[in-house]
Amino acid sequence: MNKRLRYKPLEKRLMTAEDAAARIQNGMVVGVSGFARSGDTKAVLHALLELTKERKDFQFDLYTGASLGEIDGKLAEAGLLRRRLPFQLNHVMRNAINKREIKFTDLHLSDMPEHIRSGALPDVDLAIVEAVAITDDGYIVPSTSVGNNALFVERAKEVIVELNLAQPLELEGIHDIYAPEEQMRNPIGILKPDDRIGIPAIPVDPDKIIGVVLTDMGDTPSTIVKPDKETEQMAQQMMSFFQNEVDEGRLTKSLMPLQSGIGSVANAVLYGFLESDFHDLTLYSEVIQDAVFDLIDAGKINFASTSAIVLSRDYMDKVLNHIQDYKDKILIRPQEISNHPEVIRRLGVIAMNTAVEVDIYGNVNSTHLEGTKMMNGIGGSGDFARNARLAIFVTKSVKKNGDISSIVPFVSHVDHNEHDVDIIVTEQGVADLRGKSPIERAYEIIENCAHPDYKSLLWKYLDEAVERGGHTPHVLEKAFSFHERLAATGTMREKALVGGGVRTRLK
Amino acid sequence: MNKRLRYKPLEKRLMTAEDAAARIQNGMVVGVSGFARSGDTKAVLHALLELTKERKDFQFDLYTGASLGEIDGKLAEAGLLRRRLPFQLNHVMRNAINKREIKFTDLHLSDMPEHIRSGALPDVDLAIVEAVAITDDGYIVPSTSVGNNALFVERAKEVIVELNLAQPLELEGIHDIYAPEEQMRNPIGILKPDDRIGIPAIPVDPDKIIGVVLTDMGDTPSTIVKPDKETEQMAQQMMSFFQNEVDEGRLTKSLMPLQSGIGSVANAVLYGFLESDFHDLTLYSEVIQDAVFDLIDAGKINFASTSAIVLSRDYMDKVLNHIQDYKDKILIRPQEISNHPEVIRRLGVIAMNTAVEVDIYGNVNSTHLEGTKMMNGIGGSGDFARNARLAIFVTKSVKKNGDISSIVPFVSHVDHNEHDVDIIVTEQGVADLRGKSPIERAYEIIENCAHPDYKSLLWKYLDEAVERGGHTPHVLEKAFSFHERLAATGTMREKALVGGGVRTRLK
Repeated sequence: MNKRLRYKPLEKRLMTAEDAAARIQNGMVVGVSGFARSGDTKAVLHALLELTKERKDFQFDLYTGASLGEIDGKLAEAGLLRRRLPFQLNHVMRNAINKREIKFTDLHLSDMPEHIRSGALPDVDLAIVEAVAITDDGYIVPSTSVGNNALFVERAKEVIVELNLAQPLELEGIHDIYAPEEQMRNPIGILKPDDRIGIPAIPVDPDKIIGVVLTDMGDTPSTIVKPDKETEQMAQQMMSFFQNEVDEGRLTKSLMPLQSGIGSVANAVLYGFLESDFHDLTLYSEVIQDAVFDLIDAGKINFASTSAIVLSRDYMDKVLNHIQDYKDKILIRPQEISNHPEVIRRLGVIAMNTAVEVDIYGNVNSTHLEGTKMMNGIGGSGDFARNARLAIFVTKSVKKNGDISSIVPFVSHVDHNEHDVDIIVTEQGVADLRGKSPIERAYEIIENCAHPDYKSLLWKYLDEAVERGGHTPHVLEKAFSFHERLAATGTMREKALVGGGVRTRLK
Repeated sequence: MNKRLRYKPLEKRLMTAEDAAARIQNGMVVGVSGFARSGDTKAVLHALLELTKERKDFQFDLYTGASLGEIDGKLAEAGLLRRRLPFQLNHVMRNAINKREIKFTDLHLSDMPEHIRSGALPDVDLAIVEAVAITDDGYIVPSTSVGNNALFVERAKEVIVELNLAQPLELEGIHDIYAPEEQMRNPIGILKPDDRIGIPAIPVDPDKIIGVVLTDMGDTPSTIVKPDKETEQMAQQMMSFFQNEVDEGRLTKSLMPLQSGIGSVANAVLYGFLESDFHDLTLYSEVIQDAVFDLIDAGKINFASTSAIVLSRDYMDKVLNHIQDYKDKILIRPQEISNHPEVIRRLGVIAMNTAVEVDIYGNVNSTHLEGTKMMNGIGGSGDFARNARLAIFVTKSVKKNGDISSIVPFVSHVDHNEHDVDIIVTEQGVADLRGKSPIERAYEIIENCAHPDYKSLLWKYLDEAVERGGHTPHVLEKAFSFHERLAATGTMREKALVGGGVRTRLK
């Protein structure tokens, strides 16, 4: 404890989670730590659930870095949230959002701090952040993520620290805390992923810290699944694409700093580098998952800048128990810096993110199922795709046993548009959209990326659209025909009633 | 002439436009000056039209800053263009693009230099740029725009300069030429709109200049129209919005650096500041039009950074004959700097751009009529909207005598999505979308911005969508019903056959 709580005056503010939870008032805006399940609060919000069990009217706005662990679902279930932003990844919360029981504001992760500073969002009343230590000066040392912690601590009138004894104290020194000026801002001095521009802890007037709660519990592990046949094929497609870029002289074997989104597909694609001859890779990303540590161990990745370390159960033990060994290879930043347009453009980042669906002209849906149901949120994909040197989107060509084609005539929601998307990768192949006109993009995507089961249907749509004419040909009344068919018949495949039976015409 | 062509060795490379045009080879990539009609080439491409009159097979790729003057239409008419990018604004060219006779690649203006440097686009073979002078060192002093001139001159193997005696020599000193490094880039040192970071002329090895062509012709004037009742109302709505922001403490009376897009609406909206009590305004924009000069004269605008000066006939005489008087108030930059994400985010720019249509959830179409026909291109609107502090889109609530509603259930093309759009302004009112969930945005937009003639139809759509459920409710098979009705009946209004006649049900 002496090593964890080094600012002595705060010892008298040690309190129980219950007492801390009582500081959350009805109607408050509460900003908590947590980014992709890592470094989230593990006690106070749980205690709040107990405390408000009998209250019917109690609701508050919850701001985070990105998704929390299972507490997101519990808060949603209890009906405690009025508004939630900027990202979530929990099936209970997702349902509540889609029933519009929780107002969800789906923001670019780098925009949220800007929105708070400019007054576009109500300001944070109370901050609750996980820490591995409080320094001699009373500064807060974050744990496995930084997210918006520094911002919340700065803006909130009161701060509660969850001092987590289960998170390794050796994380201290891995963080780089920096915030842009509010007025007359200076350039952000990051010229390469390993540049440090801040200090290793969150500065705070210790008088603002109204409570310190001791906890002893690891992060919720990620539910990442191992690579399968399709994701391995996608990884191989990606490697072939990069190899071709090297052959054409557009990239070197060290590529450019990589960003890789969250989830199993992104993780699987990174594994493609393991057996490749790319080397001296760097990451400038918002999350680093299991694969990154294997790539560091294999000597493939030299350095990874991130806003969060997100690990599956197996990798938690492996990595966190030996975090000291990774400290010269990893750095954790605030999400407004990890995702900052300035740095992304300057470094020439290669952004790799997962798509829900892609249309024939290269517009990408990252958030909405069937155009209406929120999945998780845009996260940082827009921050990166918009300002990257190369914006790559990956998706399996079909989902749900082939009943859903990821390539459609018109995406049912646009998160990344034709102007931003450079490359589409499916297990079928790679579509290179750079510099192409819409009709050229359509040929590239249908030919190279669509699943064979859906090619005829897509060509048929394109043919009919081209008959109608225009720079970006469409048949608007059939633009969502794939989605309408899915809703009506359970599959995007075209079925024709033949006699009394149903058969798939196009295969 | 001694003052214009100061690098003596180039005197022997003076040539006719015809001789210069003969250097354009079939299949070349030609990069020319010109941004929103200003500072474009006025002789060599015209001479090429004559030269290739009998050639059926001759085609080349044309890269520019943005739109050229009437030469864009002539080149399109002659069938000389294989590919054109990144922006145009000419009805003949537009028709050719929509017939897909010209491959048009619609790029964010700040991305084009990046795409050329990274090899995503074929490199420039030949550059043709307008200048007001060539310095003692052989450096090229641009005229009324900078656009991509510095980049084209740097990348091209050969350069032709059109030395335009009709453009005032007093423009010299107004430009600030700077290019980001190709590798290991440094921060762009602009901390306020009037910061100079480069040199006043385009550096070049004079040996690359294969020809100097003398011209004596002004820019094609802009066809901007005077404010009308609706645009005046929009300007007033905008002023009320800004006043409210000041009242709420989110902005000061000097606001933040403003960006204003091209065209009559954008120009009219700026006039709103003339009679307001906002003061000490600055612009960090890609174009400055007539209104900016009246605002400078009125002492409202202190400084304007731009990539082009774009003027109507009347203002050309007024401004260009007295450009010396404006030189401490104006600076012309390369478009990759005027539109750079790094600077836009740092300065906290307020971006004001025109929308073609907006949907009930705040997605904006800036480019495509009925989802298929290209109008002009995205230009810089995405560069600004994505990275701005405030992204504002303005449009009249109805067009074509009220037969087209600018507010629709689902935009037929998405150029700016719900994550990027903060404020919608029509003559009806202002929708403030900041921090809101989709359903809250829909209420705000329909209630405040839609034309009364279309409100019932929009509410009806929303009601039906809400019945279906979801975070962003839609009835996908009716999402484009407004557009389908327009195509079928010539109006987005709902008509019901009553007896033998047609009447408008909802008014």
